[in-house]
This record gives sequence, C-alpha cells and structure tokens, in this order.
Amino acid sequence: MGAINLQNPTARFSAIKDKKLSIDATRGKPSMQQVALSDGILAAPPHHEIEAYQAKTGIDILNYGGNDGLPEMKNIFAEILDISPGDVIVGGNSSLNMMFDAVATMILSGLWVQGKSKILCPSPGYDRHFAICQYLDLPMITIPMTPNGPDMDMVEELARDPDVAGMWCVPVFSNPQGHVYSDETIRRLAAMPTANPHFKLLWDNAYSVHHFQGARPAPVNILPECDKHGHPGRPIIFTSFAKISVPGACVVCMAAAKPTVDVLRKRLLAQTIGPDKINQFQHINFFKNLQGVQAHMEKHAAILRPKFELVNEMFSKYLPEAGATFTSPDGGYFVSVETPPGHAKKVVAKCKEAGVLITDAGATFPYGKDPFDSNIRFAPSFLSMDELEQAAEVFCLAVLTA
Amino acid sequence: MGAINLQNPTARFSAIKDKKLSIDATRGKPSMQQVALSDGILAAPPHHEIEAYQAKTGIDILNYGGNDGLPEMKNIFAEILDISPGDVIVGGNSSLNMMFDAVATMILSGLWVQGKSKILCPSPGYDRHFAICQYLDLPMITIPMTPNGPDMDMVEELARDPDVAGMWCVPVFSNPQGHVYSDETIRRLAAMPTANPHFKLLWDNAYSVHHFQGARPAPVNILPECDKHGHPGRPIIFTSFAKISVPGACVVCMAAAKPTVDVLRKRLLAQTIGPDKINQFQHINFFKNLQGVQAHMEKHAAILRPKFELVNEMFSKYLPEAGATFTSPDGGYFVSVETPPGHAKKVVAKCKEAGVLITDAGATFPYGKDPFDSNIRFAPSFLSMDELEQAAEVFCLAVLTA
Repeated sequence: MGAINLQNPTARFSAIKDKKLSIDATRGKPSMQQVALSDGILAAPPHHEIEAYQAKTGIDILNYGGNDGLPEMKNIFAEILDISPGDVIVGGNSSLNMMFDAVATMILSGLWVQGKSKILCPSPGYDRHFAICQYLDLPMITIPMTPNGPDMDMVEELARDPDVAGMWCVPVFSNPQGHVYSDETIRRLAAMPTANPHFKLLWDNAYSVHHFQGARPAPVNILPECDKHGHPGRPIIFTSFAKISVPGACVVCMAAAKPTVDVLRKRLLAQTIGPDKINQFQHINFFKNLQGVQAHMEKHAAILRPKFELVNEMFSKYLPEAGATFTSPDGGYFVSVETPPGHAKKVVAKCKEAGVLITDAGATFPYGKDPFDSNIRFAPSFLSMDELEQAAEVFCLAVLTA
Repeated sequence: MGAINLQNPTARFSAIKDKKLSIDATRGKPSMQQVALSDGILAAPPHHEIEAYQAKTGIDILNYGGNDGLPEMKNIFAEILDISPGDVIVGGNSSLNMMFDAVATMILSGLWVQGKSKILCPSPGYDRHFAICQYLDLPMITIPMTPNGPDMDMVEELARDPDVAGMWCVPVFSNPQGHVYSDETIRRLAAMPTANPHFKLLWDNAYSVHHFQGARPAPVNILPECDKHGHPGRPIIFTSFAKISVPGACVVCMAAAKPTVDVLRKRLLAQTIGPDKINQFQHINFFKNLQGVQAHMEKHAAILRPKFELVNEMFSKYLPEAGATFTSPDGGYFVSVETPPGHAKKVVAKCKEAGVLITDAGATFPYGKDPFDSNIRFAPSFLSMDELEQAAEVFCLAVLTA
C-alpha cells in the first residue's frame, strides 16, 4: 500500500493526478466476482423441472397469473425476514420499484396527500429514498442518525404532527453508515403514538443477510413488535436479492400485515398480471431456503471483507490527521465519512480531478442538501483491490488537501 | 363435431351436463403448445455471449443500470411499432403494469385528477383497462364500438369537455371484437381538438403482429399522425411480448413522443433501477428483429387459426338460430358474441352449470355493467381442439336454451 507522506500530501496528489485514473466508486454495486457467484442462477431450468413443478403445484410458471409470487419464493423471503409467507408480496427487479409503488399507493389510495404528508428521513441516508419523496412531492424532514439509529426523541416529537405520515428506515447496516438500529430504537418506533393513523415505517431491510464480519445482526423483529403495540399495519418491509444474486435480474419483496397488506394487494390486482415467474423459479432452485442464502452470502462476505479492511486501514491511518471521522461497518455496502464542516463538496471535486468518481456530496441528505457539507458516502464493493487501493488513497489525499 | 338437434337443445344440454366437464375459457391465454414455441428463449445465454455483448456495448447486463431498456430491445419494439427507438421505454412483465403506471403518472404528476378526470372507454372492451380506471377513481364513459372503431362523433363531442382526459384504444384486433380501427377513425382521433391539454390516447397495441388470417393490418401510424396535427404528446403506446414469447416472463414497452415521454421518463428515474436485463437479452438473441418476430408469429397463427375456424363454424351454425351475432376476427385472441338483450348473464351461468367457465358477462363494460346484458367474450386460444369443441358446443347450447 502506498504510504502517504503526511508532511506533503499535495505533491503526492499531483503525482497521482498525472496517472489519469478512471475509477467509478459512486454506487454500491456488487463486483463482477460477486455476481459470478450466481452464474448457476442463469442456467435455464430444464423443461422436465418446470413440468414437475407444474404437476406438483398446479402452477404454470410459463403462463399468466400469480400476481404476488410463487409460494416457495414467498417462503424464502419469509424465512429471511422471519415473518409469515402470507404477508409477503414478491416482485421482479427492483426493490426500489416496490418502494416507489408502495409510497405511490398511499397517495393514490387517498391515505397520504402530495405536498402535505411529510416523511421523516434519517440522514445521512439513501439518496434514492429521498428521490422518491421528491418526485412524489412528499415534504422531507431530516432526522439525525446515531450509531443506534435515528434520534428517537425527535422522531417521537414529530410523530405528534398529523401531517407526518411516514419514515424511511434502513434498520440493518444503514446506508451509508452501516449502523444497526438498537432494540430500544426499534421498540420505540413500534410503540410510539402517531397523530396520523396512516403513519408507515418504510422499512428497507436491504442488508439483512449482508454481514461480512461477525454474526448476522438479529435486531427486534419490527412486524410482531408493532403488532404487540397495537400498530400491526405500521411497517412496510422491503428486501431484495439484488446484492445476493444478480443485480440486473433479481427478485424482491415487500411485506406487511393487515390492514396495510390489503391496501397493497388491492393495487396489485389492478396493476399487474404478475412478475416474471421463471426468474423466481430459478431463484428457488438455486437458493432453496434461508440456509442456502446464508451459505451463498458467506461467499459474498469473503470477497467484501478484505475490501472494507483495506479502506478501514487507509482511512484509520490518514483521515484523523485531517479531522475527519468514518464508520467501520460489519456489513452492508458503504463507509460513511464526516469531513470537517464545509469540506465534503471540495473533497468529492478533488477526487474527480484525480479521476475517482465518488457519490456527490449532499446526496445522502433530503433534497441533496447536507446542512454541514461534511458527509461523503464511500462505496468499496465494485472496485478491484488495486482500484480500491488507488481510490482510497486519492480519497485520503483529497481530504488531507481540501 | 357433435351436431346439435335444434329442435331439442335442452336434452343435449342435459346430456352434456352429465359429462361433468371442467373447462376454463375465461382468459385469453396462449396455449401450452404456443408457449412451447419459445422454449429457446428460456435457454440461458452462454457466458461468452454475455461477455461479448458487454465488450461490444459497454453495458453490463448482469449489474445495475439501464432503467429504460437495452438498445437492441428498443430497436425491436421500434420496428414492431414503426417508431423511433428513442421514443421507447422497455419494461418487464407485464404491459398492464406499464399501463397502470402511465395512468398513475398522469395523476401523480398533477395532470389528471382522481374523481374528476374522465376516461372514454370504447365498449365492449378490455376489463383490465377498466379495472385500472376504477381502482384509480377515474370516472369512465362508455363509447359504443363499431367495426371501424369507436363512435367518433360521440368521442369528438365528449372531447370538448375539459374533464375528459383520456381514452383507451385497442386499435388492432380490439378486445373482444377483433375489429381494426379504420384509417379515418385514427385520423379523427389524432386530429380532434380536446379541451383538456393533457388528453391522452392510451393506445394498447397488444395485437399488432397477432393476425392469423390474411396480411398484417397496417392502419395509419398514430404517433406521426398526432404529430402532423400538432398533438405529438397525445398517444401513449403499449405493446407486449406476452403473446409472442412467454406470458409468465416477457418484455413489454411503452412509447410516446415529447412532451409525454419526458413525463414518463421523469417517473422512471425516481421509480426504478431498471427492469430485468437478462430477460431482454434472451429476447434479443431469440427474435433478433421484426422479421424474427413475424416468422415466429406465423407459428402462433398456425396453432390459433384452426381454433378460430372451429368456433366460427359452430357459432355460424347455431347462434343465428337464437338471434345471437358474433365476430369473425382475422387476429387477436377473442370472439365477441351479442346475445339478445338480457341473456348474457344467463348464458354464462348456464355454461358454468355445464362445467365451462366463460368471462363474466358485463366484464367487457366499465364497472362490469353491460347496459343491455348482451355481450360475451369467448376465448378459444388456451383450450385444446377437443376442449374447444366441447366448450363451443356448450356455449351454443347455453345460448339456444337461455
């Protein structure tokens, strides 16, 4: 690993610029090596397997029908989320689409109102969650994040406003910090009174099986917890195989208890004949159950672990020198960096100067506006170890010289 | 073919009831034999082909990205619809989903208003179009159909109402009649003034290459025609491979010119990472271009033709006796029957008594209400020739005895 001379980072930065790098670290994409782990899923299901399935279940996966997913696919999602298969609605690429549709359903069903219903947005957070709210004209309120999850005092206070209609949550390995919500946070989210009877937790459980250090996080289960407190319809849970199988051709789900799942199913009946069943069938054959998914995720972890270790080592060595802090997650896809206030945009611009593209500063906040201009999302997964080392060095140099 | 004794259909009907048939002729599903024509599409693309494609185009079809479709898939749709690939947005299963989303986009963008914006519905028509309007609370106005398309005098008159915001059209082999809109109809739809500046033709070109008799219909092209009359943004075109390749795992598209395509793309950016690219890639490899699609559709036609001939023969022989009329389409998936007023529900109920399920009477009208209780949609495609002969006989007997 190239050692940066902390006395003279500027010279090193100039030298690196001369290399004319071209590295894209903007998105949390699995690497080609990770995607190749699922080569087997692309193998066409032999016709006798399709026929055997039809004979056993009476479901013709080649023809129309089945608008909420094959039973075995629901079972796999139910096992992952530890909920009932009856609460699961399966979809095709992508979970973002399901989130958009779920939020749009709240509006189209007259439960939320554009321009009025406000959404709580723990931030730094996921830019695409915020883009959905912005497109649909749902005003966003920034909630500070802590290592235990969102600032719950503030959330409980705001939930007294009847216009506050929902909240984005990435409970496990939050995007971009990699924080896991504490049990207390989840219990308070489930228990708190909300003035709006249609208040929803938009529970994006994107990284539920995506740990690469230690054991799988096992936070309190939001669905029974909400039920216990008399709010069974509060959560809408989302998860995806995008970062398990093939991001370009995956299966996803949303899940909710009554009465929310009824609202979602009602839309589904009018909206679609159903998602791609062949792709579900291939996922079922390849993964079989939660155990199959977990065995597969160990292979992902083995690829991701050294990348996050490399970033952690580089950042530990150099970022404190510049007064920047960063997270060291045990899973998920990102490292969150806090530069001194007013520096994030400059750092991203400097990285670009040196040929390394980083997610735009500000993207991790509603409306793209980081009030302190300090947060940056760093995405190690897609790069090779060589590229990553270069990108991390450029990033450190940019922070040191910005 | 069983000959019905026209002097005593009741006895024959009783005899058939004793057979305890179980035949489902409710939906326009391709038969297993038709779906098997596309077995090749389920063959997994070999890895070297995926790699070669990526090397050539720079597009990684396995990973995230490409929210409006692969260029080659756009080209195939553009050839089918005779429009520019730049106007095409590709999606996955199903085209109904795209229609729902397009209509919902009009509402979510504030251009149409729930409970107020009215949709013209040529009827008898497609029940799932009407279900979208009903779910989204867009009041429907029934427009009578003629063999040349909707009653254009009535359409032009109603279009003067600023609350009239759109119209469903199945221009080629209308569902359920199999009528093809005349050039005059299409020209009037393109040219007519509308009081609502956001008036849209929801142009469901579902059966564009689905002729089984004679040549492919070549009606006036709606997109350039609207453009010529100063209404480029008026049509939103939909089409699907559901009845070309595999209904359970197909590709679909919507298409529109500016400014409408911009409205649709804006939603897409917020809504999704993109549809399944592997499935598109498999369609591209299998069909290649319009010529490939047309050659394939000849095989479908060869399977469908004798089925429609059988129905036509049976219906010609018996239905006139009961004062019923019916269509003899050259393509599409349905035959539309007009019983004497007040008989349709009875006929469908009698068919069910004899173990033959037919689409509910009324389904072909907005809100499921046929003002004359006379229209029935008959769907020959999914049944084997044996089943079809039995179903058609039961149907004729039901009409004769109702």
